[in-house]
Amino acid sequence: MFLQNAACWSVPGGARATPHLSTSLASALRSCDIAHAKAIQALGKFASCDVGDALVQIGLRHGGYLSGLKMYSPGSNGTVAKIFGPAYTVRMVPSADKTSPTPPCHFADAIPKGSVVFVSQPKGLISACWGGLMSTRAKKLGAAGVVIDGQFRDISEHQELNMGLFARGTSVLGSNTFTRSSELNVPVQYDNVEVDEKVTVTPGDYILGDQDGVVAIPVAHIEECVRLCQERYEIDQKTLEGLEAGEEMGSLIKKLRK
Amino acid sequence: MFLQNAACWSVPGGARATPHLSTSLASALRSCDIAHAKAIQALGKFASCDVGDALVQIGLRHGGYLSGLKMYSPGSNGTVAKIFGPAYTVRMVPSADKTSPTPPCHFADAIPKGSVVFVSQPKGLISACWGGLMSTRAKKLGAAGVVIDGQFRDISEHQELNMGLFARGTSVLGSNTFTRSSELNVPVQYDNVEVDEKVTVTPGDYILGDQDGVVAIPVAHIEECVRLCQERYEIDQKTLEGLEAGEEMGSLIKKLRK
Amino acid sequence: MFLQNAACWSVPGGARATPHLSTSLASALRSCDIAHAKAIQALGKFASCDVGDALVQIGLRHGGYLSGLKMYSPGSNGTVAKIFGPAYTVRMVPSADKTSPTPPCHFADAIPKGSVVFVSQPKGLISACWGGLMSTRAKKLGAAGVVIDGQFRDISEHQELNMGLFARGTSVLGSNTFTRSSELNVPVQYDNVEVDEKVTVTPGDYILGDQDGVVAIPVAHIEECVRLCQERYEIDQKTLEGLEAGEEMGSLIKKLRK
Repeated sequence: MFLQNAACWSVPGGARATPHLSTSLASALRSCDIAHAKAIQALGKFASCDVGDALVQIGLRHGGYLSGLKMYSPGSNGTVAKIFGPAYTVRMVPSADKTSPTPPCHFADAIPKGSVVFVSQPKGLISACWGGLMSTRAKKLGAAGVVIDGQFRDISEHQELNMGLFARGTSVLGSNTFTRSSELNVPVQYDNVEVDEKVTVTPGDYILGDQDGVVAIPVAHIEECVRLCQERYEIDQKTLEGLEAGEEMGSLIKKLRK
Repeated sequence: MFLQNAACWSVPGGARATPHLSTSLASALRSCDIAHAKAIQALGKFASCDVGDALVQIGLRHGGYLSGLKMYSPGSNGTVAKIFGPAYTVRMVPSADKTSPTPPCHFADAIPKGSVVFVSQPKGLISACWGGLMSTRAKKLGAAGVVIDGQFRDISEHQELNMGLFARGTSVLGSNTFTRSSELNVPVQYDNVEVDEKVTVTPGDYILGDQDGVVAIPVAHIEECVRLCQERYEIDQKTLEGLEAGEEMGSLIKKLRK
Repeated sequence: MFLQNAACWSVPGGARATPHLSTSLASALRSCDIAHAKAIQALGKFASCDVGDALVQIGLRHGGYLSGLKMYSPGSNGTVAKIFGPAYTVRMVPSADKTSPTPPCHFADAIPKGSVVFVSQPKGLISACWGGLMSTRAKKLGAAGVVIDGQFRDISEHQELNMGLFARGTSVLGSNTFTRSSELNVPVQYDNVEVDEKVTVTPGDYILGDQDGVVAIPVAHIEECVRLCQERYEIDQKTLEGLEAGEEMGSLIKKLRK
């Protein structure tokens, strides 16, 4: 279901379905597979700030940054918290919309293990489209986190579940009379309102969120993103050491960032 | 002063003032009285989310939800906090407004015991209209909480007083040169800006606020609201049990919500 | 570098450079110096609310209040936190702006000891212009705090450094491709958007920020501001005592505020 954009990740399934495949190609695919899995694992260790900068360098206008989302759970208790996983997207429509598709099942029952649930709510509403019962189900299915492009409710319940949850805001109102789910795992648009930019979140894009914010990482860029993050991380570590030793920011940047 | 809309609550006073009243009517009123008091007590045990949903079901467009208020005190320390009580309203006007009425006393001296102080501030200002000294007085008079449709100040003082306080925002500026109180216990309008809806908060409306938000419950709807909250609470509990046992959200909703 | 507006503070340097100065004038300047230093020390003990009110009384439209800044660090852990010091200003421009001046050194290397770094970022962006490495350098140089008229990033790093930091918002994106520093220690404009007021922050203005907000205090007003703060503080203390003893707010105001 995920990762349909990831050349070296989507093929192995095909490979397993094709026993005639030459041994050398199969092994090449397998090693590609492993490299990709390692890249994903490495990616999850970086901060949203590292990743955003790397994606800007790669050429994404705002580095996949989804501006305006706040971490509401597990809460601002000082501990470092992060969500990371491939996006499982849910497109909501107004309840009054009777023509848009209806999903084959409740959207909370189709959450893939390890995924970040990404719910896109129509704008201009003050109702929620996610709540405590949803997080209970998501936890049961092994979700890695939740991002609500809109409002959610039952703050304390998500915190009790220790579910990583980001949203634009809160509400007391359930979705019932206001919105309904329409399509699952389709590309959705996230609006960076301040800069009039629509970021497409494609199912399988990796979502990484921490205290500073949320970024969406297209699968095609994962390897390059990790390489740049690693490179910059080392520079930042050396800069930090230099600063702690009393060196000047200006000369450290000149020396290290080249 | 409160509850003038509550048929079975406002009459007993009249009853006591009318000794000619037949014994059976008096006793009917008394039992109505008790039922109403019980409903209020029950109402206070629900969450803002339960109440909002019930009022939507009853027919209020956004369920009495007052969007855009944040709980600033007693603070986000993880403990569950709630305010609940009948609204005592204060209408503020710009200080420059010399024609609007002047209240008979300082608005903080007229706070009824057990009430939620609801202050309506003119919009487009960056000053506060509530502060630490006000909460000190409100606490002394037994206020159940404070809602500021506008800005307040002295955050830490309200937290030290353990006064439940919701507001749109904060400021460092006192009201002095910016606003003054005008009318006490008159209906005020709360603007749900995002959906262009003005919610009237009438003195005596019950105000319930918790981490998720604030709702205003018209007295006439209390009994029905409690009935619906109770009904839904039981469904939600069964849904939760089902989810924790690994059942599907879709089938639980089909089975329980009918 | 600082305090060029403070008549009785800027002259002594000149005095020391002018040995011909009559002894009596020199000693007058010295005692003026001491009075000013005492006033600054006293000022730092008041809350942003005290100072804002005093500056309104002095005639500043909104009392030097910079609306819309939030304290992000050291964080809302319940402890009282405050920043106080003369402003060291940094004017940022869009990276694409090639004509605006370039600073003689990295802006983080020119932070004067005891100053509050005040960074003015162009509006309409979703990138940050301050991060953890900057706070590391600022701490090393003895900065008293940081105010970002814009976005910053690396929330947890500032909290770990225990650096007082206020900003309009957060971001995951570094400044690199979005903004660059242009001028250091020049007057910058802060926009109180809601009331369409531009407040000029001049280098050397004292910046005081706490949980309630941030105010900029022009050096010329420090003595008068302290006098008014002290006066009002005493009234507020007496009001508080009266309220705690059960007195009415109305009669206390009549009695004490005259």
